[in-house]
Amino acid sequence: MLPTVDLRPPFNISRASHIVLEVKDLQKSRDFYVKIVGLVVSDETPTTCYLRGLSEAAHHSLVLVQTEGAPACQRLGFRVYLDEDLDSAYAWFTGRGLPAKWVEVPYQGRTLHCEDLYGTKLELCAHMEVRERMFLKFEQFTGAHAQRIDHFQIFAPDCWKACEFYSQLGFRNSEYLAHGDKLLGAFMFRKGTCLDLAIVENVGPKMHHFAYIIPESHLIFTACDLAGNYGYGGSVDRGPGRHGPGGMLYVYLLDPDGHRIELCDGHYQTIDTEVEPVRWDAGSLSTNVRWGLPATEHWYFHASPFKDATTQDPEQKPNPQTLEMFIQQQSTQSNN
Amino acid sequence: MLPTVDLRPPFNISRASHIVLEVKDLQKSRDFYVKIVGLVVSDETPTTCYLRGLSEAAHHSLVLVQTEGAPACQRLGFRVYLDEDLDSAYAWFTGRGLPAKWVEVPYQGRTLHCEDLYGTKLELCAHMEVRERMFLKFEQFTGAHAQRIDHFQIFAPDCWKACEFYSQLGFRNSEYLAHGDKLLGAFMFRKGTCLDLAIVENVGPKMHHFAYIIPESHLIFTACDLAGNYGYGGSVDRGPGRHGPGGMLYVYLLDPDGHRIELCDGHYQTIDTEVEPVRWDAGSLSTNVRWGLPATEHWYFHASPFKDATTQDPEQKPNPQTLEMFIQQQSTQSNN
Amino acid sequence: MLPTVDLRPPFNISRASHIVLEVKDLQKSRDFYVKIVGLVVSDETPTTCYLRGLSEAAHHSLVLVQTEGAPACQRLGFRVYLDEDLDSAYAWFTGRGLPAKWVEVPYQGRTLHCEDLYGTKLELCAHMEVRERMFLKFEQFTGAHAQRIDHFQIFAPDCWKACEFYSQLGFRNSEYLAHGDKLLGAFMFRKGTCLDLAIVENVGPKMHHFAYIIPESHLIFTACDLAGNYGYGGSVDRGPGRHGPGGMLYVYLLDPDGHRIELCDGHYQTIDTEVEPVRWDAGSLSTNVRWGLPATEHWYFHASPFKDATTQDPEQKPNPQTLEMFIQQQSTQSNN
Amino acid sequence: MLPTVDLRPPFNISRASHIVLEVKDLQKSRDFYVKIVGLVVSDETPTTCYLRGLSEAAHHSLVLVQTEGAPACQRLGFRVYLDEDLDSAYAWFTGRGLPAKWVEVPYQGRTLHCEDLYGTKLELCAHMEVRERMFLKFEQFTGAHAQRIDHFQIFAPDCWKACEFYSQLGFRNSEYLAHGDKLLGAFMFRKGTCLDLAIVENVGPKMHHFAYIIPESHLIFTACDLAGNYGYGGSVDRGPGRHGPGGMLYVYLLDPDGHRIELCDGHYQTIDTEVEPVRWDAGSLSTNVRWGLPATEHWYFHASPFKDATTQDPEQKPNPQTLEMFIQQQSTQSNN
Repeated sequence: MLPTVDLRPPFNISRASHIVLEVKDLQKSRDFYVKIVGLVVSDETPTTCYLRGLSEAAHHSLVLVQTEGAPACQRLGFRVYLDEDLDSAYAWFTGRGLPAKWVEVPYQGRTLHCEDLYGTKLELCAHMEVRERMFLKFEQFTGAHAQRIDHFQIFAPDCWKACEFYSQLGFRNSEYLAHGDKLLGAFMFRKGTCLDLAIVENVGPKMHHFAYIIPESHLIFTACDLAGNYGYGGSVDRGPGRHGPGGMLYVYLLDPDGHRIELCDGHYQTIDTEVEPVRWDAGSLSTNVRWGLPATEHWYFHASPFKDATTQDPEQKPNPQTLEMFIQQQSTQSNN
Repeated sequence: MLPTVDLRPPFNISRASHIVLEVKDLQKSRDFYVKIVGLVVSDETPTTCYLRGLSEAAHHSLVLVQTEGAPACQRLGFRVYLDEDLDSAYAWFTGRGLPAKWVEVPYQGRTLHCEDLYGTKLELCAHMEVRERMFLKFEQFTGAHAQRIDHFQIFAPDCWKACEFYSQLGFRNSEYLAHGDKLLGAFMFRKGTCLDLAIVENVGPKMHHFAYIIPESHLIFTACDLAGNYGYGGSVDRGPGRHGPGGMLYVYLLDPDGHRIELCDGHYQTIDTEVEPVRWDAGSLSTNVRWGLPATEHWYFHASPFKDATTQDPEQKPNPQTLEMFIQQQSTQSNN
Repeated sequence: MLPTVDLRPPFNISRASHIVLEVKDLQKSRDFYVKIVGLVVSDETPTTCYLRGLSEAAHHSLVLVQTEGAPACQRLGFRVYLDEDLDSAYAWFTGRGLPAKWVEVPYQGRTLHCEDLYGTKLELCAHMEVRERMFLKFEQFTGAHAQRIDHFQIFAPDCWKACEFYSQLGFRNSEYLAHGDKLLGAFMFRKGTCLDLAIVENVGPKMHHFAYIIPESHLIFTACDLAGNYGYGGSVDRGPGRHGPGGMLYVYLLDPDGHRIELCDGHYQTIDTEVEPVRWDAGSLSTNVRWGLPATEHWYFHASPFKDATTQDPEQKPNPQTLEMFIQQQSTQSNN
Repeated sequence: MLPTVDLRPPFNISRASHIVLEVKDLQKSRDFYVKIVGLVVSDETPTTCYLRGLSEAAHHSLVLVQTEGAPACQRLGFRVYLDEDLDSAYAWFTGRGLPAKWVEVPYQGRTLHCEDLYGTKLELCAHMEVRERMFLKFEQFTGAHAQRIDHFQIFAPDCWKACEFYSQLGFRNSEYLAHGDKLLGAFMFRKGTCLDLAIVENVGPKMHHFAYIIPESHLIFTACDLAGNYGYGGSVDRGPGRHGPGGMLYVYLLDPDGHRIELCDGHYQTIDTEVEPVRWDAGSLSTNVRWGLPATEHWYFHASPFKDATTQDPEQKPNPQTLEMFIQQQSTQSNN
């Protein structure tokens, strides 16, 4: 039931690379990502802060931009393998009538702004300036020691169509979520692990969360504990818990503007082409939660808008089993 | 506002020692405690199973007894330091008109059954048969590697009076929970860590939970993961989270009969007498939860009855901020 | 000073895949890898045992073959991305006059046996039978929970020439070890992490070690503790420690035949092409050891022979600072 | 073969409390203990620095004193339970003709300086000023998060006689090391865990090491990694490893003056009186090392002198199997 993947795609996207977020208070957001998540500041100006994970040599994987308006996600960045892939990408997007524009971005090589079928704002580049990997500078560690950006999760009004789009670009599914014939979630990768881009059917395009890898499970507690101490105890949006699809340990935090970041431990390797994607049944509670309580309605439905993007509703509103529904059922049961 | 502690008590209770629980399906309960919690079976008969933690030399810290009736807690066991302390204990209880009776208990030395002011069923002994400590038999480890029993939490209809009772026996408070002048929770110890007995004001006597120490935080995830795989994913009753009072990482699981076990990491040392108990304000949400969501009504109000005990209501029904209330408030807020 | 890498290589090797080892006592070796390392048996016959890591879907990453002779390494296996890459590989090897032969191997797709310039025995395939990933079957875990094969380290009589060979096949260096102009160690990868193949200059071809990833650092202790309990305490060949190059935590164990396995935690991502390899000076002690004692002479010089391979000496015998030399120096110093 | 323990001792020593060390460069030593070990500075003057572990409410567990002379250990501090125990202690020491003198010590209540049979310098007090426990101030953590002082290890010229001395004061053995009838090591406790005072037969009195508890095993690696980064990579004196007696994971570091600190994870509970001490045979290599290499001669024989104390040789020089002997044997074997 999944779209065909092009194993020799028109250009070589190599990995999820970076995300650009608009924030209302740059200092506050910077502190959140440095002190709780553990990112390192590569460079900063009065209106922009560039951060990277401890093991990243790339200049930035998170860019925070001061805004006066409502906080939004500007762009999801992906790397292509070689500079020449950018030209192939430009040709491919324009050939399909999709937006594609060359732009200048500090600390990045040639950069292409483009959009997928639903207007998800993308940014492709082959190179960035290189900074020292900090993963062995133990004495400078802060926060939860986030190592590197891992993936994005977006909302799309039609999951199958979005999945088909990215399948043409060589993204494969490690796992997916379906109900009968209906695809509801696609967990896609380019880089040889489970995920670079997760697509969930809902009002979109929106950015549901972006994820960083933490190297050991105890750091999930560290993230929560620091969140609590810095006044973000209520921002632990979901977890700690263990995913159904993918099976990672996770915790989700809301940053000061409500952008959602996931911290998760590593996942399995997905290089070999003979392995079939794992199917999950959206109708089963255990799909969403291996133990503990289900996620809140807020977790299921709240997502950051993309700047200047127009959203579209899915044909059918998603109907996940939320914590609110679960509590309601429990209370009904105990009254009977 | 706390009762006076007798630092030279009439007899020397040295620690929380063991708990006797009635269960409906002995094999199922045994499997739960061996495969998920990680306890070791010391001995078993068709109707009784004796278990201990990996680092315990004492024969048992958990006794499961097959029952036909409604599952209950039979006894909370405490150790006294020397055999002669038992005689002093007998004199003390009978001198106050409280039940005290010599009984024979397998694998234990001389044993005294007695009750506190509210009829909480207690069992004192000075000695048990000794078994090998298993904490270095790595190849035999199962479950979450629970090391040793740590404490019990009980409900008492008047927390201050119960706290006063145990203060006479040399129990000191490491921390306590109050609202204005009203004591709502007493976290008491004998053994030089935070806790041997926690007392919370509610319909009692009841046994709210008993706790085992796990040696590293990642084992909290192991407990949850195994619970999930063995069909107890819905029995993760609260957490993983970090306590306000005491500050331990915890998770609570419900066993097949709904008896609640806490797994927590170690806590601080409390030997020195000059340190004052830490006060927590029951009116503050952060008292109950450093990060994440509050506990459910079930966690706050469900507890195992003591066998053949008559309960008493507190003067005022407790009014903790439950998850149910929190969800309600969130929903009201977002509707306004 | 490093050879040029072909970023568009003649065929696409995607990763280190598996190793075939000859062992004198199949049952004993199987037990070692299952009970200490934590591998899972995929299939076994009276003379061959196929094992995989917990997160591997591929049928095997380690093959043990019963031998009557001296234990040796039969083959190092690499995956190619698509089946058609095998034909390109065949053409490339035969075109250079290097051995290349189609063979049948159980559980593998079309398989090519070939050799590098020094006669290192290689095996290429595009596909294997798929087995369930076991990384979430917590209740079946044994040993140190090894997740997946990571890399091989080989000896080559001329490191630069060997490095040049693999550079033509698209292997890039994440880090390297040199003294002046002389390349002594090349840490090369295909799969987007630090390593698929490490090459060290010494009498070769030989197999120095193969490595599996363990997911958390505490499992390094678990491996050692289990080794101790199963009678292999003296087989902890080096470590626990932290690498200079690569920076991973590691421990090396010797299996019952003296084949060396490394367990290490994950490493950084190496996908982007703009990042330069990190240079290490072979003359500096801290290159070999960030803390603690240097490795023994045995660790530096002992390696498994490849079956039926003829070795060649390097021009100059390596002269690493061994524990033996260090102890000697210390003793000389304290006598002065 | 062990001396009789007085379970109702003449006064109640409750635990190992603090150690006073002379150091040549106060700032350097302070940095070592703060940045690598993770202690917190309670107070400091130009010549004295008072430190405590993260979970300690007591003002200090380590006191560093600037010296011009050769660095030595001034005192080992123990707590008594109640102030009145000090008077009993004074009477007991003077009654036996042992030195005992009231002194004023900053931040401590009434303090008694006294000496054991071999002149080990002791300091007893019942109270200290109280400081905030820092174990939940995650954002202020440094180093290896050392939680609390655990025990001291001393050299005594006759282990049995020293053990007998402390047995009279209620110290019990959790484990001990013997060869035939000869006691070589006594691992003694007061506080309900394995150790407050370890006594090893060797030239004494000397202070071999003092130990702090780290809460999780990964922090052993953190200590080593920070030691390496701060230039103390060569000061990792032994380990990481796992003890024979006691079974803790450990690492030993040498501070800038060569004083030895052990970091170890927690140990088992020892409250119950029916449990017999565990015997270890000094003639077995596995007593000293469960896996990996034996300790160096330096680790076995180097210890800090007590200030102004006269040492005595044991009747027989200890003959442990050192790394140096092991290397020698290996080399002899491989030459045969």
